[in-house]
Amino acid sequence: MQGLHLTADLSGCRDPAGLMRDGAALAALCERLASEVGLTVVGRQFHAFAPQGTAGVTGVLLLAESHLAVHTWPELSAVTLDVFVCNFGSNNSDKARQLVDALVQRFEPRHVQHQQLARGHRA
Amino acid sequence: MQGLHLTADLSGCRDPAGLMRDGAALAALCERLASEVGLTVVGRQFHAFAPQGTAGVTGVLLLAESHLAVHTWPELSAVTLDVFVCNFGSNNSDKARQLVDALVQRFEPRHVQHQQLARGHRA
Repeated sequence: MQGLHLTADLSGCRDPAGLMRDGAALAALCERLASEVGLTVVGRQFHAFAPQGTAGVTGVLLLAESHLAVHTWPELSAVTLDVFVCNFGSNNSDKARQLVDALVQRFEPRHVQHQQLARGHRA
Repeated sequence: MQGLHLTADLSGCRDPAGLMRDGAALAALCERLASEVGLTVVGRQFHAFAPQGTAGVTGVLLLAESHLAVHTWPELSAVTLDVFVCNFGSNNSDKARQLVDALVQRFEPRHVQHQQLARGHRA
């Protein structure tokens, strides 16, 4: 199963919309952006750590194409993003890149560490 | 936010327990193994693609330490695994390795591609 896994680890986030402490808003944004780039959401799960509204949020979207994961640490001004897409049937790599870029922008980070993995053997 | 992200991409899976087509069994196994290695499950979401019982499964556990993700493609005898742990407060890297190894064994793959990413800038 071949695919592309993109990660973006953000620090110094200004987070003008307060997404790092608001699981509902972050879930809605992730879902909207995933749909806009043409990925298919088949499940979602977000969890706000206590105390809610102050501590961070962790969440995932299950995609027909694989998944998106986001974890926030407001106390560190840090966010991690993962978008993994399989390329079974069609190449979803451009959609994955668009989704990561769109999400990164919302947090207005000072630094971003981008990494990527090519996943899956040709058995 | 520093952490370790492990991936394992499995092919030629014998899957003796039929986990690749059984979302409930796979979710239960993931949760049990995560707890056994000492990670803390705070949410779960699994989705079985149609036709259920024949097609694959995609799922995640939200962990206090970050996440586990698993995607199965029975038609390709392939499985992808992700375990991402942050190392904020304590070093969870050994727990992540134990969890990946325990999961890989259950699928009895012919090949495994292991990769890892060191996540997070020191800002």
